[in-house]
Amino acid sequence: VNAPGEFELIERFFTARGAAREDVLLGVGDDAALLAMPPGAELVLALDTIVAGRHFPPDANGRAVGHRVLAVNLSDFAAMGAEPAWALLGLTLPASDEIWLDAFASGFDELARRFGVALVGGDTTRGPLCATVTLAGWVPAGTALRRGGARPGDDLWISGTPGDAGAGLAILQGRLAATGAVREELLRRFLLPEPRVQLGLALRGIATACIDVSDGLAADLAKLCRASDAGALLDAARLPRSAALTTAAGDTAALQLALSAGDDYELVFSAPPAARRRIEKLDSAVAVHCIGEITEVPGVRVEGAALERDAAHGFDHFDD
Amino acid sequence: VNAPGEFELIERFFTARGAAREDVLLGVGDDAALLAMPPGAELVLALDTIVAGRHFPPDANGRAVGHRVLAVNLSDFAAMGAEPAWALLGLTLPASDEIWLDAFASGFDELARRFGVALVGGDTTRGPLCATVTLAGWVPAGTALRRGGARPGDDLWISGTPGDAGAGLAILQGRLAATGAVREELLRRFLLPEPRVQLGLALRGIATACIDVSDGLAADLAKLCRASDAGALLDAARLPRSAALTTAAGDTAALQLALSAGDDYELVFSAPPAARRRIEKLDSAVAVHCIGEITEVPGVRVEGAALERDAAHGFDHFDD
Repeated sequence: VNAPGEFELIERFFTARGAAREDVLLGVGDDAALLAMPPGAELVLALDTIVAGRHFPPDANGRAVGHRVLAVNLSDFAAMGAEPAWALLGLTLPASDEIWLDAFASGFDELARRFGVALVGGDTTRGPLCATVTLAGWVPAGTALRRGGARPGDDLWISGTPGDAGAGLAILQGRLAATGAVREELLRRFLLPEPRVQLGLALRGIATACIDVSDGLAADLAKLCRASDAGALLDAARLPRSAALTTAAGDTAALQLALSAGDDYELVFSAPPAARRRIEKLDSAVAVHCIGEITEVPGVRVEGAALERDAAHGFDHFDD
Repeated sequence: VNAPGEFELIERFFTARGAAREDVLLGVGDDAALLAMPPGAELVLALDTIVAGRHFPPDANGRAVGHRVLAVNLSDFAAMGAEPAWALLGLTLPASDEIWLDAFASGFDELARRFGVALVGGDTTRGPLCATVTLAGWVPAGTALRRGGARPGDDLWISGTPGDAGAGLAILQGRLAATGAVREELLRRFLLPEPRVQLGLALRGIATACIDVSDGLAADLAKLCRASDAGALLDAARLPRSAALTTAAGDTAALQLALSAGDDYELVFSAPPAARRRIEKLDSAVAVHCIGEITEVPGVRVEGAALERDAAHGFDHFDD
């Protein structure tokens, strides 16, 4: 029941993609991949699917889709403090559009090489456009960051500037107007999210809990709080917002986007106050900001003048 | 950009599915799964996607779809002689049909438990019906069965009775008529394929090459031959055919189905003639038959009277 030419598609688009790794004992081309794990490490596995019209616009260019399907999985690894190594790709395509496929492959390939990930297997089929990646790798035993370790009194941190990706999506959908460099920057933040793998690795032994922001800061922070059996008090004034975001959206909408828009793929994490100096000195590609604290009271609350009511209203949906 | 209620869907359908395993350090519910590998083993990873209307009828019942998406991956493991352990499931669904989902989950769950596989992660999204499973597990270092090890003079073997699944599909599509137990048997062989994991494990150290039959015996044997830089001479008279298949299709069509229909998920493997006695005595749930030999001449040829021309014609498509 396979498409004629599927074999050739697989050969062409799955061979020699991503990084070359010596621990790949058998890659694409057999019934499964064989891989050498470092001794004493724990295996880490993540799987994410992205679907046209749901996670990306149906007319998105191939490069952005190839980038995204790997980036969302790399972001899961970042949130675990895990070392990515090997990827498998399931790609379902309505028709064999070689230009789109080349762009998809190059978007995937560029990100995979940058993070040292080899493509070791996969499956292409005809069907509605969607893509699934399984990412595999490891952590030294006992060092993985989890959602459930936050303790009352811990500082609450975020990487980068949340809300930018949400603004980029709003621009794409015509709900927000922006021009020039501001527009380009916000579109790039939505279309080509940058997973914070280096930061996640640096946070091992420091962060008590960590999650990546895919559904929105408030929603994902609520998951971290639930898993930790704790709550969070967030100071709106300390929430970092990019110049591009405030220029495009204005202060009030910018804060709302930073709190509730998804697709940022930044890391939210907790750490004891004693670790503050170490965290500020981390050599990561992205800045981190302390934005509040973990509380005994469950739920996510936001301090910050006029925004309190909006925010509280916004969170009802997620936080129960 | 996630569906409301997705979290609840994941909670409900992904929790405590499949076998309980002590080597699952962290399962469903965080950003990735954490797993303990046995020391000295090689990691094995396979990924297969099945799409409605392509790999199964769009109106197939949920149980058959849940079974199939795991079975095709288990079959890849069988072909490698690998021990399955952990699965991740990406499920894309047009709407939240709870009855269908319950059936899907039970089909998946039943097969997973039977093979000792834990469901450790996944992702549900709204979209056109398709499912992807990544299966992870291991082999003792250096023992994996590959496609590329067949040597001229090796015997060629197959498990079970190929062609049954193809006849089942033909019945479903109204291209073949059958009634009663014959019909039931052939439908079951298409809808609920049985992966030959136990046989694959038993063949480690015996088989020189192995592949599972997903695209058809001739097509998959051609892949084994290409990978081994060899050919195969197949004796049509020795090709096992089930009573159900010959009853429904007659002798000629039965042979054609056995040679070229897909979806059987039987194992085709090569082994030295000296191993014949050991192979015949293997304690496997399925019978195996010697059906020919590996040759120096490349390509797949079929011996067997009146069928030679048909068969040769059929193989032109695959064998180049």
